[in-house]
Amino acid sequence: MTVPPPELRPEIHRLRREVCALHAELVRWGLVTWTSGNISARVPGAELMVIKPSGVSYDELTPESMVLTDLHGRTVEGDHAPSSDTDAHGYVYRAMPHVGGVVHTHSPYATAWAARGEPIPCAITAMADEFGADIPVGPFALIGGDDIGKGVVATLSGHRSPAVLMRSHGVFTIGAGPKAAVKAAVMCEDVARTMHLALQHGPVPALAPEHVDALYDRYQNVYGQRPAAGRTPESEEDS
Amino acid sequence: MTVPPPELRPEIHRLRREVCALHAELVRWGLVTWTSGNISARVPGAELMVIKPSGVSYDELTPESMVLTDLHGRTVEGDHAPSSDTDAHGYVYRAMPHVGGVVHTHSPYATAWAARGEPIPCAITAMADEFGADIPVGPFALIGGDDIGKGVVATLSGHRSPAVLMRSHGVFTIGAGPKAAVKAAVMCEDVARTMHLALQHGPVPALAPEHVDALYDRYQNVYGQRPAAGRTPESEEDS
Amino acid sequence: MTVPPPELRPEIHRLRREVCALHAELVRWGLVTWTSGNISARVPGAELMVIKPSGVSYDELTPESMVLTDLHGRTVEGDHAPSSDTDAHGYVYRAMPHVGGVVHTHSPYATAWAARGEPIPCAITAMADEFGADIPVGPFALIGGDDIGKGVVATLSGHRSPAVLMRSHGVFTIGAGPKAAVKAAVMCEDVARTMHLALQHGPVPALAPEHVDALYDRYQNVYGQRPAAGRTPESEEDS
Amino acid sequence: MTVPPPELRPEIHRLRREVCALHAELVRWGLVTWTSGNISARVPGAELMVIKPSGVSYDELTPESMVLTDLHGRTVEGDHAPSSDTDAHGYVYRAMPHVGGVVHTHSPYATAWAARGEPIPCAITAMADEFGADIPVGPFALIGGDDIGKGVVATLSGHRSPAVLMRSHGVFTIGAGPKAAVKAAVMCEDVARTMHLALQHGPVPALAPEHVDALYDRYQNVYGQRPAAGRTPESEEDS
Repeated sequence: MTVPPPELRPEIHRLRREVCALHAELVRWGLVTWTSGNISARVPGAELMVIKPSGVSYDELTPESMVLTDLHGRTVEGDHAPSSDTDAHGYVYRAMPHVGGVVHTHSPYATAWAARGEPIPCAITAMADEFGADIPVGPFALIGGDDIGKGVVATLSGHRSPAVLMRSHGVFTIGAGPKAAVKAAVMCEDVARTMHLALQHGPVPALAPEHVDALYDRYQNVYGQRPAAGRTPESEEDS
Repeated sequence: MTVPPPELRPEIHRLRREVCALHAELVRWGLVTWTSGNISARVPGAELMVIKPSGVSYDELTPESMVLTDLHGRTVEGDHAPSSDTDAHGYVYRAMPHVGGVVHTHSPYATAWAARGEPIPCAITAMADEFGADIPVGPFALIGGDDIGKGVVATLSGHRSPAVLMRSHGVFTIGAGPKAAVKAAVMCEDVARTMHLALQHGPVPALAPEHVDALYDRYQNVYGQRPAAGRTPESEEDS
Repeated sequence: MTVPPPELRPEIHRLRREVCALHAELVRWGLVTWTSGNISARVPGAELMVIKPSGVSYDELTPESMVLTDLHGRTVEGDHAPSSDTDAHGYVYRAMPHVGGVVHTHSPYATAWAARGEPIPCAITAMADEFGADIPVGPFALIGGDDIGKGVVATLSGHRSPAVLMRSHGVFTIGAGPKAAVKAAVMCEDVARTMHLALQHGPVPALAPEHVDALYDRYQNVYGQRPAAGRTPESEEDS
Repeated sequence: MTVPPPELRPEIHRLRREVCALHAELVRWGLVTWTSGNISARVPGAELMVIKPSGVSYDELTPESMVLTDLHGRTVEGDHAPSSDTDAHGYVYRAMPHVGGVVHTHSPYATAWAARGEPIPCAITAMADEFGADIPVGPFALIGGDDIGKGVVATLSGHRSPAVLMRSHGVFTIGAGPKAAVKAAVMCEDVARTMHLALQHGPVPALAPEHVDALYDRYQNVYGQRPAAGRTPESEEDS
């Protein structure tokens, strides 16, 4: 266990608070049961991440109980064991330098699509906005080691979607920071539910590819508030 | 950006508070996910409306963060960019002078009907009361410009229903004021869900047209509290 | 409008508080949307009832806003118009002297069964406990006048079930007091949902009639706390 | 009614508080309606258990209202009648010495599987983790006497799953302590829902038996926080 350099202290402190607080969003939007989902954030400029402790209930999370690990999942700082999904988070950060946040859930509608191994077809505008494509299915992989991380990276590399349905398992999402990854997880469950419901009473026409492109482009570039003096891009990314 | 006349100040101030507070109803009744729905109110006697800022979460909304725009969506007053659906709201106000409130959501059951492009048949009394007819489907239209607004107006003009299911997209509702439009959005999701569930186990007989007429007439004219001294029609309209 | 005798004052006061408070249970258990359900209580020993005001939201209900009417729905005391379902409540009290509470909702799963006009088959023990039989379907009836009340009474007279699914409309439940009627409404939605879900993946075997009888008898006579000194039967009936 | 030995007082006091508090988890995770589920804990080193009082609402539960009974369901201490399911809880403790907690619910998705008499197939990793197998179906049994307890014990003896779907009835779960049994009940409903949803749109491939074994072994032996100085195994068992 190596000590992180002192100049990273303020950022690590901030990320402990942010990652802790974001777990409440998983509860609020119905994405997790008991202790079943987790969030991490990369520490910018270091080979480190902040992640949920394993098996601790969401009510009991504190900034101090978040675990600081290296990108191979070895604890650098923390009294708790890190999430059992730490290996997968670390692999994603090692392979995808633009990713600053990772989320994993077993949210029910999205996991139902994952259990069938079926991508969610891009057929509503909210889905085109956020995902820009079908939400793809990744391989089945056992927990422990790099297999899940490899499956996430192989599926999402070069794909517009920040969400992947890992077969027989659940959802992984990525983002420029942890809040963007949480938003992707929340919207993934939302569209998984709407498409599930829609298909229960008949076929759902897909969106035309040019409409998907137009919606995705606009949403990524026009929606929300533009950064202004005193606001960082991170705090604006999905607001 | 033109300054609104001073005599409109109290009403604009009141509408900022009302529109802000009504967004909590979208959350409470499960109509929105993350930042996905928005409400606006016309400023009576002016070519102005008050609307949600784009991409700001419901927890962070304040009366001051609501945006005052003209009916072409140009900001008149406000530190935030207005909702990305502002064009559609403005078009509705320009085309439908009796409309004082507009709501847009992607509520899940109603959006499932919209994704199939299927109207919700009027087969339960709650639906006859509020909508007086099937809830109709409007055209697919891309965001930006007047296309969505035109589709909403073309579908709802001369129709009893204050709600339209925009194809592959979601719901727009109108009302004499913003609270009535919110009520229509809440009831639209309610009947969308009940009809979805009902049809999962067999056919659902439609209501006879004369029963729909009788229920609609009674609900619009008898239900609720009658205006009395000190109460405005607006505050009573859907109480 | 006649003044109720002074000796009824304490009981009317108590019932205003009880009926007001019980509406929060309709919200808590997801039985109502916007202002769509209502509860009443008979004033024992008088031709009077206490009922929800029409179209007032659940958040704004106060004991004082409850309306005291006679059993023909004429206001005896209250600043608000009584529920638009007052006629039906009053008819039930006139026709069924053992009934002390009535509840009406459009709870979604139960209303889905009502929309199809299909009774809920008694196939799980919770249903045998509370209802002792299939939950029956009553006739379609228009609001206003005695038609709904007549349909409720005709269906529930001599039936074990305290709940009826009024065709194309929703649920009415009865009880010895308002809390028992609320419990029946809550359990009706619960079993409507479980049976809806169960039947989505295959047939559900009915309970044998002798098992239904045994469960119903035990639940009505053994379950819960027995009345003791200082407790009234009403407060114990469904505890 | 015999008085428990004084040395058990602190543990009984602690269990009254724990069992009372755990009922809030049944409410939070949507497992219970009105008063329909119950939790008990064995008093270690005695032929005693602490269990919910019959028919008392979850809001009104206090540590003092929990009932202390022997393992034949006879009240040892308490002002209330114990849960009507006390016989079943006691039978499980008598027959399964390693069990320290029992939970019973009618949670909707799991009860839907029970109503059809259909085991939940082990096809998602969360299910392999917690249950290590299909969730099995137990026999139909009437309440009162030992029949339900016998069915629970016969089904779960030698089975990895801590949950059984009692036919036409609901769920019983067991655990080393009451918190583990509550977790099993929560996860049972979660996987019952996900598998219900998944199967609505097509077949769901089962997990390979060797994958189920690997996941179950890892979860039972690696997941969560390891006991450390000042932590008891019980408080850690499912954290």
